[in-house]
Amino acid sequence: MDAVLLFRDEYYRNWEYLTAYFSERGVHVAAVNSPPRLMTNGVDNFISTEKYYETIVPESQTAEIFDTLRHLDKCHARRLEELDSMPRRTLTSVWWPFVQHGLMGGENDVTVIDSAWSDFFGVYRSDRNSSNQTSTEASRASLLEPHFDGSASWWTQALGHAHPRLAIAAARAAGRYGHVMFPQATHLPALRLAERLLHDGPGKGWASRVFFSDDGSTGMEIALKMALRAFTAKGGQKLDSSAKKKLGVLGLKGSYHGDTIGAMDACEEGVYTCEWHNAKGYWFEPPTISIRQGQVAVMLPAAIAAECGNPTGTIEMSSLSWAYNISKRLNTPLADVYRQYLLRTLGGIQRHSEPQIAALVLEPLIMGAGGMIFVDPLFQRIMVDVVRGSVEGSQTGWSGMPVIFDEVFVGLYRVGVQSTAALLGVKPDIAVYAKVLTGGIVPMAVTLASDSIFQAFFSETKTDALLHGHSYTAHPIGCEVANETLDIVENLSTSNSWKDARAKWKSNDVGGPNVWSFWDPDFVDSLSRTDAVAGVMTLGTVLAFRVKDKDGGQLLFFHHPTYI
Amino acid sequence: MDAVLLFRDEYYRNWEYLTAYFSERGVHVAAVNSPPRLMTNGVDNFISTEKYYETIVPESQTAEIFDTLRHLDKCHARRLEELDSMPRRTLTSVWWPFVQHGLMGGENDVTVIDSAWSDFFGVYRSDRNSSNQTSTEASRASLLEPHFDGSASWWTQALGHAHPRLAIAAARAAGRYGHVMFPQATHLPALRLAERLLHDGPGKGWASRVFFSDDGSTGMEIALKMALRAFTAKGGQKLDSSAKKKLGVLGLKGSYHGDTIGAMDACEEGVYTCEWHNAKGYWFEPPTISIRQGQVAVMLPAAIAAECGNPTGTIEMSSLSWAYNISKRLNTPLADVYRQYLLRTLGGIQRHSEPQIAALVLEPLIMGAGGMIFVDPLFQRIMVDVVRGSVEGSQTGWSGMPVIFDEVFVGLYRVGVQSTAALLGVKPDIAVYAKVLTGGIVPMAVTLASDSIFQAFFSETKTDALLHGHSYTAHPIGCEVANETLDIVENLSTSNSWKDARAKWKSNDVGGPNVWSFWDPDFVDSLSRTDAVAGVMTLGTVLAFRVKDKDGGQLLFFHHPTYI
Repeated sequence: MDAVLLFRDEYYRNWEYLTAYFSERGVHVAAVNSPPRLMTNGVDNFISTEKYYETIVPESQTAEIFDTLRHLDKCHARRLEELDSMPRRTLTSVWWPFVQHGLMGGENDVTVIDSAWSDFFGVYRSDRNSSNQTSTEASRASLLEPHFDGSASWWTQALGHAHPRLAIAAARAAGRYGHVMFPQATHLPALRLAERLLHDGPGKGWASRVFFSDDGSTGMEIALKMALRAFTAKGGQKLDSSAKKKLGVLGLKGSYHGDTIGAMDACEEGVYTCEWHNAKGYWFEPPTISIRQGQVAVMLPAAIAAECGNPTGTIEMSSLSWAYNISKRLNTPLADVYRQYLLRTLGGIQRHSEPQIAALVLEPLIMGAGGMIFVDPLFQRIMVDVVRGSVEGSQTGWSGMPVIFDEVFVGLYRVGVQSTAALLGVKPDIAVYAKVLTGGIVPMAVTLASDSIFQAFFSETKTDALLHGHSYTAHPIGCEVANETLDIVENLSTSNSWKDARAKWKSNDVGGPNVWSFWDPDFVDSLSRTDAVAGVMTLGTVLAFRVKDKDGGQLLFFHHPTYI
Repeated sequence: MDAVLLFRDEYYRNWEYLTAYFSERGVHVAAVNSPPRLMTNGVDNFISTEKYYETIVPESQTAEIFDTLRHLDKCHARRLEELDSMPRRTLTSVWWPFVQHGLMGGENDVTVIDSAWSDFFGVYRSDRNSSNQTSTEASRASLLEPHFDGSASWWTQALGHAHPRLAIAAARAAGRYGHVMFPQATHLPALRLAERLLHDGPGKGWASRVFFSDDGSTGMEIALKMALRAFTAKGGQKLDSSAKKKLGVLGLKGSYHGDTIGAMDACEEGVYTCEWHNAKGYWFEPPTISIRQGQVAVMLPAAIAAECGNPTGTIEMSSLSWAYNISKRLNTPLADVYRQYLLRTLGGIQRHSEPQIAALVLEPLIMGAGGMIFVDPLFQRIMVDVVRGSVEGSQTGWSGMPVIFDEVFVGLYRVGVQSTAALLGVKPDIAVYAKVLTGGIVPMAVTLASDSIFQAFFSETKTDALLHGHSYTAHPIGCEVANETLDIVENLSTSNSWKDARAKWKSNDVGGPNVWSFWDPDFVDSLSRTDAVAGVMTLGTVLAFRVKDKDGGQLLFFHHPTYI
């Protein structure tokens, strides 16, 4: 706020105390006389109003109101100076995540975000002065232009930037609690969030506990700690400290669970890993799903294609709905191939002493950070079945290994469903949510766990507890904003626009799952038939397509950030 | 908000649109007639007002206002029911950090925090109904009682819970930005925070870059990644991937840097570490400082005491100021002992191939989570000098190893100074701040780095960049609240109450450092002379003392949470 202009109230002398109040806060205050009383005769009223204007805005420009205008001019000039200086100052003070500063060309490479609203950043137009517009045009043009936030600010946004209900929720919790420490304590925002996640949310039917932390990466570290303990605590596991350090996870190539070193150790080594990285596990190359030339197909990795005797490595699906119809696809020959391939490979790993596999860690349906890889859900389903030993007649010894779903990216309707468990037809033992959880306002994550995982830490010995926590665990602002977000999203999920979108994607696959997208199926079909496009996929708000370049293929992705 | 009671405005018909607006939000609305005009005659006015009251609150209780009262009664009853049910519901849905649920006795072990203000939680009195008060007394007593937040909610609070300026700052940023993604972008709250931390804050004089993350643990993981790269990138280091994995840090026993696995690996194995923990480094037992029977003294660990030929292991200091007068103490015999001890031990480590030490990681002055261990600052200073090879005449080869200060607990005036670098007389290469940074409202951390650290990642190759980030990196709410917090704290630091506190602690040690506490020196002196107390220490808001029990000693700690 730069200035306050008051109508002078002689009875309460409002300008006196408000000037003092605002000047402490650096805000200019001026008072003008109140307008005259409304007159019933229009002409009289016009004359009286004109006279009033002459007194408060005289031609001589001597009145107090001109001080206010000059003050506002100064504020505006200062604001422009500041906006102009921001790229230079940022380039010398900030160290950006994931950015090679050595590749920055200069100030034009810095996006100055003045504000944000809906799916758009309000970006400062640094070219304002150098444009070939006439100076009058230039001075009338907005200083800001909307930039589409194509990645929904790393998939944190669900309801658009700066949603007023979320801003009010944040203010409400900030004013009531600030932050309060959580161990052995409770507060309503955290309790309500925990209960809804367990009873009406992604934990429904399997999870019994919610563990709070700060981001997807910490949420996954907690998930790993839960799984490692549950595995080692299982009857008959007598592992010494050295063997425990070497326990590994089972996963997929291209997976990503956050940047802290423990979460990274659950993935393969690569350009993103640091000196201390120590990959602990075994990662399968996954079959993937794509739409090409209007045709939904599964692309098999070479090893599996060879087992199928399928030289193209491509298996056509009758529809997207069929591709995700796991209960029926479980009885197809491809399911048998997956099952045999997984069992044989795992048997091979088991014959070696390292890594001893302790958990299955999956990003269900889509590996987002790995490059919007849509994994064949049948393969992920059979991975779960195999590690749980639920394949009839098999005695693999894999039974009971904890299964972690990293739903940080796909969860809470990003792909059209609250949890992917509904599509995969199996429930995890541990699952992690973040990003959309707090509506794109503040960081927070939750790790959900089943009772059997919780029991692995439950005893009368303090040191058996899950000794992990962060200072702001279950901070009320995050919880309040999460509750507000879930209220809004749950309402949206039964809205007409969602119903319409679902109806458009309804297939002839009777009884099949309702897989759907916010993107129009005809548009997706056309896009997939475009020559330059190597493949398209979509689920929920996510649209990803690969554009061919002369070197082979380049991945581009877009999606509809808000859930509307 | 439970209900809105309006004065009926016939001209604007306010109740019509406000009833609709609020009913959508579940808020009861009722309108009563406006009060009569003020009459100049007091008796007339009294009669007119009495009549008015009779119309809006008739004895028959039929008026609309009684619906509002009944509604409020229902809301209150519902609120009590909810408060009563919270312990039971929390015990079946939440998994607390650091808590052994198997040791929870029942609902009475759950603290129900209804709200918080200043240094106090507003805790629901679950014993309200079972007290031996008369029922009238009981019904009039507040349902809430203030509980002192002795650990400042894990040392996150600096200005008291729910500080109105911080709540407004949070709301301001939430309404203007929500969150916006940060790579190659800038926004004013983040830029201003970065600049003040570098130019007027703890980075002044040495840091050139600010890297944002979510909490102290992620901030330390980033610090470690910076240090490992800077060490390995140093000319002449030709380390293969296997050697890089085995690089270690130098630190102190009792240190703690957060609960993610990478931050944990920079500490020794212990009850808090998980299956994957792999301690990477070497940790010295530190000499500590304490006040006993009014006497400030350094307590030496056995190994150093033996080198001094000091059987008691205790060295008396003339004052607290002297204990922290590093520039003078560097010339004492004890400094020589520390130096020789460190050089000899490090030489021993160097002769072994593992761990190859790559960085020095310190919590300067106090190891908070390790049990409020006040380390002799002279020892920490000499550790820095030794690893930097700045000891005259020595050619140890330790020069140039990055030094990390984990100031998550001690930084930003928790111990009375903005950064401990001023007291230690040396600057780090990397430093981490969190907790107080965001005024106890939302999680956020910053990792500050010198230009030489930044240059180790600077090139024209993307994969040389620091490839680490979190979805909510530099979220505007956190940055805005941090700026507001630092504004307030900087004002406080020149306030009379701080001047008075500093003056009380002023010692005769002319030219010595101004080490001071919010606690009265006479109180600290008396406490230290209490028979049951084994030792006291204080700096800034931190007061820690050990109370003897029959088994030896028990640590208790308190401190004054707010900076006032």
